[in-house]
Order: sequence, then C-alpha cells, then structure tokens
Amino acid sequence: MKKEVNVGVIGLGRIGKLHLHNIIAQIPGIKLIGVSDIIENSLQEVSQKYDIPIIKNDYRYLLDNKEIDAVVICSSTDTHAKIMIEAAQAGKDIFCEKPIALDLKEINRALEAVKTEGIKLQIGFNRRFDPSFMKAKEMVQSGKIGKPHIVKITSRDPAPPPIEYIKVSGGIFLDMTVHDFDMIRYLLDDEVKELMAVGSCLVNPEISKYNDIDTAIITFQYKNGGWGIIDNSRQAVYGYDQRIEVFGSEGCVQVANQKPTEVSLYGAESTTSDKPLYFFLERYNESYINEMKHFVDCIQNDRNPSVSGYDGKMAAIMGYAAKESFSKKEFVGIKNN
Amino acid sequence: MKKEVNVGVIGLGRIGKLHLHNIIAQIPGIKLIGVSDIIENSLQEVSQKYDIPIIKNDYRYLLDNKEIDAVVICSSTDTHAKIMIEAAQAGKDIFCEKPIALDLKEINRALEAVKTEGIKLQIGFNRRFDPSFMKAKEMVQSGKIGKPHIVKITSRDPAPPPIEYIKVSGGIFLDMTVHDFDMIRYLLDDEVKELMAVGSCLVNPEISKYNDIDTAIITFQYKNGGWGIIDNSRQAVYGYDQRIEVFGSEGCVQVANQKPTEVSLYGAESTTSDKPLYFFLERYNESYINEMKHFVDCIQNDRNPSVSGYDGKMAAIMGYAAKESFSKKEFVGIKNN
Amino acid sequence: MKKEVNVGVIGLGRIGKLHLHNIIAQIPGIKLIGVSDIIENSLQEVSQKYDIPIIKNDYRYLLDNKEIDAVVICSSTDTHAKIMIEAAQAGKDIFCEKPIALDLKEINRALEAVKTEGIKLQIGFNRRFDPSFMKAKEMVQSGKIGKPHIVKITSRDPAPPPIEYIKVSGGIFLDMTVHDFDMIRYLLDDEVKELMAVGSCLVNPEISKYNDIDTAIITFQYKNGGWGIIDNSRQAVYGYDQRIEVFGSEGCVQVANQKPTEVSLYGAESTTSDKPLYFFLERYNESYINEMKHFVDCIQNDRNPSVSGYDGKMAAIMGYAAKESFSKKEFVGIKNN
Amino acid sequence: MKKEVNVGVIGLGRIGKLHLHNIIAQIPGIKLIGVSDIIENSLQEVSQKYDIPIIKNDYRYLLDNKEIDAVVICSSTDTHAKIMIEAAQAGKDIFCEKPIALDLKEINRALEAVKTEGIKLQIGFNRRFDPSFMKAKEMVQSGKIGKPHIVKITSRDPAPPPIEYIKVSGGIFLDMTVHDFDMIRYLLDDEVKELMAVGSCLVNPEISKYNDIDTAIITFQYKNGGWGIIDNSRQAVYGYDQRIEVFGSEGCVQVANQKPTEVSLYGAESTTSDKPLYFFLERYNESYINEMKHFVDCIQNDRNPSVSGYDGKMAAIMGYAAKESFSKKEFVGIKNN
Repeated sequence: MKKEVNVGVIGLGRIGKLHLHNIIAQIPGIKLIGVSDIIENSLQEVSQKYDIPIIKNDYRYLLDNKEIDAVVICSSTDTHAKIMIEAAQAGKDIFCEKPIALDLKEINRALEAVKTEGIKLQIGFNRRFDPSFMKAKEMVQSGKIGKPHIVKITSRDPAPPPIEYIKVSGGIFLDMTVHDFDMIRYLLDDEVKELMAVGSCLVNPEISKYNDIDTAIITFQYKNGGWGIIDNSRQAVYGYDQRIEVFGSEGCVQVANQKPTEVSLYGAESTTSDKPLYFFLERYNESYINEMKHFVDCIQNDRNPSVSGYDGKMAAIMGYAAKESFSKKEFVGIKNN
Repeated sequence: MKKEVNVGVIGLGRIGKLHLHNIIAQIPGIKLIGVSDIIENSLQEVSQKYDIPIIKNDYRYLLDNKEIDAVVICSSTDTHAKIMIEAAQAGKDIFCEKPIALDLKEINRALEAVKTEGIKLQIGFNRRFDPSFMKAKEMVQSGKIGKPHIVKITSRDPAPPPIEYIKVSGGIFLDMTVHDFDMIRYLLDDEVKELMAVGSCLVNPEISKYNDIDTAIITFQYKNGGWGIIDNSRQAVYGYDQRIEVFGSEGCVQVANQKPTEVSLYGAESTTSDKPLYFFLERYNESYINEMKHFVDCIQNDRNPSVSGYDGKMAAIMGYAAKESFSKKEFVGIKNN
Repeated sequence: MKKEVNVGVIGLGRIGKLHLHNIIAQIPGIKLIGVSDIIENSLQEVSQKYDIPIIKNDYRYLLDNKEIDAVVICSSTDTHAKIMIEAAQAGKDIFCEKPIALDLKEINRALEAVKTEGIKLQIGFNRRFDPSFMKAKEMVQSGKIGKPHIVKITSRDPAPPPIEYIKVSGGIFLDMTVHDFDMIRYLLDDEVKELMAVGSCLVNPEISKYNDIDTAIITFQYKNGGWGIIDNSRQAVYGYDQRIEVFGSEGCVQVANQKPTEVSLYGAESTTSDKPLYFFLERYNESYINEMKHFVDCIQNDRNPSVSGYDGKMAAIMGYAAKESFSKKEFVGIKNN
Repeated sequence: MKKEVNVGVIGLGRIGKLHLHNIIAQIPGIKLIGVSDIIENSLQEVSQKYDIPIIKNDYRYLLDNKEIDAVVICSSTDTHAKIMIEAAQAGKDIFCEKPIALDLKEINRALEAVKTEGIKLQIGFNRRFDPSFMKAKEMVQSGKIGKPHIVKITSRDPAPPPIEYIKVSGGIFLDMTVHDFDMIRYLLDDEVKELMAVGSCLVNPEISKYNDIDTAIITFQYKNGGWGIIDNSRQAVYGYDQRIEVFGSEGCVQVANQKPTEVSLYGAESTTSDKPLYFFLERYNESYINEMKHFVDCIQNDRNPSVSGYDGKMAAIMGYAAKESFSKKEFVGIKNN
C-alpha cells in the first residue's frame, strides 16, 4: 500500500471547502492534517462539521508542519504566488487553484521557485479531468476525427458573479475564459498562434462600470493551422452551458450538456425535459475528485502532474492577450516562452 | 424505359385520396386512367382538383377498361373481397387496402381467385415501407442484434375514431393492432405461435357499448422462441406514438418517434421540443409512396409484391385470435395454413 | 444539530460493502460503530481499508452493543428474517436489504416482531430513491399525465448472475422482477389486481436446469384499472437497461437510460455515443446514498420510512404470484392482506 | 378558386430541375407553360420526363409569351441580372435564384428595373422556408428567449464543389456563407453592423490556387448590439451540418440536424445512429416547396414576397464585406443603403 499523502488546505472559500470535502470523503490515499483561513467564521464552520487536527488562521503553521507533504492552495488569487513560493521553499508539493497570479512577473517568480525547489505543482484546471472532455480529447488524439479544423467551445455561466468579484477578478477573460483557454490547449495539444476577442455588456450594464464585459466571442488560430471559437456569457438562464466540439477532416466529436435526470414528459403541447445541471459544483463534481486523485497519484508515484505551472501561465498569457485584443479590436499573437 | 402502369383507383375516402395524390404527383411509371366511388361528392371533389380521364360511380367501368393494368382498391372493407375477385377475373393486378375482409372464408375465396387468375396482389401494409422500420428489419436480418429475444411495439393513435367507425371496424384488434400484427411478422420473418390479449375501455367508456376496447396489451411468443409485447391506445394526447424495439442476444435496435422539427427551447424552467408527428398521414407519408413504387416495380419487372395476400390473411387470423384470447383471457394459438 | 445515528452493518458482501462505504463517506449524521460477517476475509478486507471500532464474526455483538441505534442487514437472504427479529427485540431500528425472506410465513413473523417492538424498518428498495424515478412519480402524482392507462418497465441486467446464485435466488421473479414489482406499486400508489407471467431460457440454457428462466414478460392490471408490462432479461450486452414509462390520459412520462458521458462522434459511417451505465452500482449509485439518508432522517426525526415492511411483503407476494402464473400460464390475483 | 399562375422556368441545371419538379408535382395553383436552357441535352432530358408545352433554347420565347405570368430564373449567376431586367420589362413576376449578381452595380440595376416595372420579385433564399428555422425565428420573435445576445450558425457542406465551380463562384463568402448571411438577418430581423472573416484552406489546398478558402469563421455584431458567429467548412464527412442557435437573456433556441431515420442500435461497444441528411436536396427539400408556394401565394393574393430584392442585395453586400475583412484581417462595417 502506498504511503498516504498528508495535506493541508489553505483557504476555505467555496472552492476550498469543495476540496476539503473531497479530501475527507472521496479521495483514497490522502489524509487531511490541517486547514487555514484568515476568516475565523470559516474555520469554525469546518471545525463543527469535520474532525480536523490542525485549524489555524495562519497558513504558515501548515508550511512549518513536518508531517504535511503537500498543500492545497485555495486562498484569494492575490496570495497564490506568495504562498506558492513559501510552500515550495518549505518543500511541500503544491496543488494551486487557478490563476497562479494576475501578474505575469509574479507567475514567473512563483514558477521559478517551484523549479528551484524541485517540488510538484498541479494547477486546478479541473475541467481537464471531466470524463466527457477526457473522452473527447482521447478521440481527437486517437485520430478519430482526423486533422482538427475547427474547435468550438460554448461556456456560459448561469448567473453573473457579484459586482464585488467583478471588481477584482481581472475581467471576464481572466476569470472565466481562462478555463476555456486551457481547454482549447488541452483538447488539441497545440498552442494558439493568435486570437481576437470582442464582446460587450448585454447582461448587466453595471458590469461595464468596472471595465468588464459579460458577453464575449473569441476567435483564434492554432499554430498547426486549425481555427477555433469560444463564446462566453455570464448569464444563461437555463443553467451552466458547457459544450465542446472538435470538427476535423474525418469527423466531429461533440460534448453535450448534462442533465440532472433522464425524464421526459410528452404532453399535449410539447415535450419537456430537464435543464442542464445548474453550475460548476454540479457539472464538474467528478472532475474535482479526479484532479485530486491525480495529484495524490503523482506524489505517490513520483510523476509530474499533467496540468503544469506552464499550463497555468499559458492560460494567463492568453487572458492578457484577449484583453489586449479586446481594447485594440485586432488579432494579438500568443508568445509561449 | 419501362412501360407505364395504367391504374384505376376504386374508392375515394381518406386513404383513396392519399393514393390518388401519390399516383398523380409522386410515383414515376404509373398513370391514372380512372377513378370510381359510389359517392357523387367524392367524384366531384377529385374532378375539380385533378384532370382524370374516367370518373365513374361504378368500379366495373374500370375493370372493363382494357387500358387499365391494375386497380388500387380503397373502398369500404366489406367490398374488398368481392371487388378483388372481380378484378382478378378481369385480369387486373391488385393493390388492396387492408384488411382483405373481416371474414376468414371471404379472405380465402379472394386469395383463391387471385391464385387462379395468376395476377399480382399487394396488401396495403404501408408500415413495411417506412424507412426507419426497413432499416430496423435490415439490422435484425443482418444479425446485428444476434438472436431476437424480445420484440416491443408501442402503437397509439392520437385520438379515437368516430363511434360510427367503431361500430363496423371489427374491433381494435382488427382495425388497429392488425398493423402491429403484420409488423411483428415482418420484423423477424417469423410466425407467432400463440398470443394473449387483454385490455379495457379507459379512454372513452362509450366504446365499450359496441363490445370494443381502447387500451390493449398483447403478449406473444414466436415459433422460434422469442417473446413480444404490443401496447395499444386509441388516444395519446401528444400525437401518434409509433415505436419499435427488437432486443436480442447481441444488441437492441430501437425506432423512436419522428418530430416535425428539430427545434429545442432551453428556458428557465425546462427544455421543450416538439411533440411527435400528428398521425399516419404525417408519420407514414413516405411509406405510402414507397409501397406504391414497389407495386409499380413489381408489375413492370414481373416480381411478386413483398406484402402478399398471405400476409393479409395472417394479420387477420391474428386479429381473430386476439379477439378470442381477450374473451377467454388465455393464450390462443395461431394456425398458419 | 441532530444526534448522530450509530449503526452496525451486518454482512459485507457486495451490497454490504456498498452501504459501508456510503455510511463512512457519503451520509451525514450517521456513524459506523461496527460490522459483522461470518467470512473472515471480508472482515480483514474492510479493516484494512477503514478504521472501524468493532469488527466481529457474530452479528449479535452488534445487537448487544448499547451504543448502536440501528443495524443495516445485508447478510444472505435466508438470514434476513431471523436477524430482523433479533434486532427488533434488541430495540434497534432496521434497514434491511430485500427480500425480507423467500417464505411468506417468515416475512410475516419478521414484520410482526417489528410491529411488536415498535422499531423503524426500511426495506432496501433503492430504486425508489433514484432522482429520475422520483421525478417521474412526482409528475404522475401531480396529475401531469392525467389518469394512468399503461405502465411499462424495461429491466434488463448486463449479464446473468453465477449459476450458484441462480440455485438459491428463488428464481427471476423473486431475485430480479421483485424490484420492478415494487417500482410499479411505487409509481402509481396503486396495488396490482392480477398478473400474468411468461418467459423462457433464451440467454443461457443451463439456467433452465434449476427451474429458472432468463427472459420474462409480465402483464398486469392495477386495481384502479390501468394496465402494465414488465420485460426482463438477464443479459443486455449493451449494459444495464432500466427504462420506465407511464402513459396516461393527458400525457406520458418516460425515464431513459443514463450514459457515462455526453460525447457523440459524428463519423463518415454513423453517429456513435456511449452505452448505458454498466450495472446497478453505477446506475443506482445516487439512490443508495439517498435511501440511507432517508433512513437516517427517519430515525433523527422520528418518521416512518417511506419503504415499509409491507412494501417488502407485497413485492414478495407478487413474486410468488408470478411464479404461480408462470407455471399455470394464466392470470393470478394478488391478495394484499 | 384562385387563378392559376402560369410560369416558365429559365435554366435547367440542378436547382432548375428541382424547381421544375416541384412546380409540376408539388405546388398547387401553379402551371408550367415552358422551359428554356441554352444546353440542348438539358431540354431533351426534361422533355422525356415531363409533358411541357414550350421547350426552347432562348428564354426570350418565354418572356414574349403572353400566357406566362411569372418566370423562375435558375440560369447561371452571370445572366441573372440581365434576364431579371428583361423579364421585369416584359411584366413578368420573378422568382430568382441567389445571388442576383456578383457585382453590386448590376444588382442595383436589376432592382431598379424591378421597382420601375412594379413587378414582384422573390429571391431564392430557401432556408427561410425551412420548418425548423421558421419555428426558431417565431420563438425569437415572440420573445421566448428575451433579447438576443449571441447567434451561432454552423454551416458545413458534405463535400467541396468541383474546382470549376470554385473558379467562378465568387469565393466561399459569396457562394456558401451568403446563405448564412441571409439567415442571420432573417433570424433577428436586425442588420449586421460589422463583421470579421478569417479562415484558410484546410480541406483541399488546390482551392487556395483560386484565391479561395474552404474553412471560415465569421464574427459579427448586430446593430442592436447582439453578437454572432458563423463557421463554415466545405467538407463535413458526416453529411450536411446545418445547425442554428439563438441565445438570449431569457433562454436559448437551438435547431439540430435532421437524420434520415430514427433508428438506434445499442451494441456491446457503443450506441450508433444515423448521420445527418446528406446535402441540401435532402435537408431543405421541404423549404424549396414552401418557397415556391409562397411565391404563388404572393402573386395570387397580390402580396410582396417575404424575401425581397433588398434581402438579396444585403447578403451580397455582406459577402463583399467578408472578402474585404478577410484580406485586411480586420472588422469591416456593413452599409445598408
């Protein structure tokens, strides 16, 4: 039996609690040693629900703890790079939620520390671990659709985030499209050569006050020549719309939305069935479990996580390119270095 | 170029008008020479719409006409056998709507005449010419599902026929299930060994006054061992429900309902799409054209129609067996002789 | 916060291990105190995987333990009634896997003890807790399909059980159809008046040596007049086929199979997508969690479980009626007393 | 009864023969008086199949014929404008296949003549008469999806046209996307403000020799603010891919592809079903009949056809804008005047 991986979870917001629950209840081979959060209420909430050995305000308690092998960084985005560097220096393997940072220099500094210390780093691009998307990629890789010509991603949230979030998120291309940027790289194992982003505020005009938009179209070309389109909206009233299509010279693979039940009602007026699953917690539930299993597996078997720091950096670079393209209204090249 | 087949249409009710239209507008190689109907209004209606050389009350004008190669018998059921015999004696090839007759002796007499005169006879089991069912049968025949174990047919009309029709139809097993009886023989190229029919009046109690029912379940076993189920209702408020399933040792083939459009609406409450096509004119439109093309093809190339008089007789025999089973509440064997 | 329910799990076969895992990892408000199994290996297996306070060969250790509030009986069928009686006498609330017993007298004795001791009993008809079936029932109850006319259940396993199981299972109607018998009562909140069962060995002739069959058709009528059909096969090569349909005067509700992914491949020959989920562990995963949550909720809030001992008894009565009907080849009435 | 509309068909290529067949067999209230084609073989072919009063090389025979009310122009694109002007001057109502011309000045001249002579003109944008797209538009118009935010059209041919066609077609934006340009105007009753077209030769490099491409992505914004995407490919190996989606503030309407049958095969490896219908003759069969019925109806009831010369002109303007955008790689505004 493999040695259990002892972890600490840093940050207990929505995504931190999700990972905490999975680590406790769903992932074999992992053991929770401690948690930290700067907000006292969050600590109290989890301490009432679970039996956790170490519960601290300061994440440095976790870094100093020799028992802990790895940390799961779920704190606010502006602290990711700093904690990552300290955790690397403390010799901990790191699972870090995306994005690594909003600033490219900070990303580079964090990745430098990871490299210097030789620890493992996995970025939380959970969608890469969704069974449907994995199967789609596998089909593309195995040549079932021939040479890819057009990739299409529809990615729409059920409702906009609070304005407070909009203010600090870095904008739609960095807080939302960033997942799609990673997905298009994942699907084809190919880098984007250049992209063009347009859009506007159609859902909520208030969002525009913070220099952000809620509806976006991104057109791009891969280095190998294929084309692609992403369309984003911050509000699809029928739920979380997450569809993918890869069209190629020999066929087309499509991933449709998932629904809570398989019930249909045939009535005198029409046929009705479910809406898609509500949001990421429901839709990507399995992917969060799978990514953590992968992290544990990589530590136990000394492998490199399939979602690297470089992947985190590239998605951020694409987000910045989209911002630039949006303001210039022209194609912007992607440099990968 | 093959010689055109000259036809006369006898009987201009709903189904007669359907065939008339197809002969005029849809079927190559066929030429309409004349029509007959005992109702003057029906003749006037078609004469205003189409340019038809011979329009008569008495079908014998058509039988006497040397130019006419074949007749399409769409008159009322009680006249089918009589006209069939006269047409056979006049040397005409015959397309006859189902059923041949409600009485088995009459059926035998009619089939005897067909045999004696050596003319071609095709019975109007149009569903055998539906592209979806043809493909399903082809899959079964080619072994794609292995050895058939269970055949299931759902066959529900959108609304009950008028009570006047109920009075003379011979009952649900002869006016409605008869199509399904033919379909189960068609799908497996196997005869039914025995069947059991149950049911009651759940749609309209008035139907029970005429010793008929509106909801029926028929369970049966094939000679080769497979089992089957038919379920009928005279009223599916969502439209014509015509589904087929053949389950076997190596797989299962299913035919779903067809819808008028492929439009879906994703709304805040649910996803809505079309109801199935309304009734047989819409659902089986293509099959009516295909069966008439087959009839023309058989005459032009001197082949035997794939839906024989024997098929017409067997479906009737099964209808009678169902009636007997229903009254006895036990399995009744099918004799095919 | 509600008091935690302390449980012991008796029997660690396939279904016992499933409940054990759910109790440990998925169900809030429940705490595992101990397990028992007569097979030493089973105990060792779980003790290596989980940290369980009490691990014993003899279930009576669990019944004697004052800390334990409830037991989950997953031992072999022939021991259910005996353990149930002893557990009731020990004052434990009981979750018992179906069937209660293969013998009706034994069932009655067990239910009598439950009644006398006033403890709670829930039978493991997990399918009642499947989200799709729950939604279907809710639609029927709320009148969305009007008065029910025809209920159809397709229930096919991916592969036959081992012959060893066939020998002791009580036959297809008691080991397999019993779930469907419960489902038809659940869907309509109506009892079956009479049923007729037919079938044969089409999958594996060896099964017939033990007086059992592998392919079955059950036709039935509800007390309120509606009709129904169940079709069973012990082998659907494409996976677990679990479909339900309730057709009524105002519409039709259908539950389709679930697939592992929503991926479709459009190729030059055809469109391909997933097979249904493989078997009950995959298909009914959620229902097992839900039923245990319901059990915990009933104990914590002093409510009667929605799946009663009477439900367990009625399903068994229907299984016996099916056996009788099968051998007599005629309809057999269901007495509910 | 309305007066029959007497028509002549000019040009008997693929689309001319399609209209000819529909006029003869499918459209009530219309009567074929004559046809013309400069190719002798085409005339012989139709004369053997149909009984047509006037068959001439020179279309002017049809224009001079007083009996003829209207002409259906299906000749080669470069002759459309010229014939349209002459037909208008001869007082004939006109159904003209798209495009009116490849040159904007010529289009203006033709439309000027139509206006001056006061005759009716309908352009052959048949997709506007497809039942699925009509229903989608109706849903948008009736407010079922709220305010439209994103329109998406997937439009892919099963195979590229011959190189001979590529040489003279005016390029992908004028021979293929032009239908999609019309569709996006139709769906929202809104004009496009600006568009951006990119793409390349991924299917067949030979196409690039004629300054054309085979894979294109067009991004656009409507005057009212909504965004849109069209993706085109000249080769989808799985058939004609014609999907539409309108996403709005209150929901999303989607039109899926149509398949020849509703048959599914559940096998041990996967579930397989049909590919989409092969090409426009199959997919848009009904729309061709509907558009001609509309033309007849407009003449009989003195209404303006819903697809005007202005619509034909706007689609061409958008095609030119796409060409310009493609070469400049920037957004190009659409002037509608």
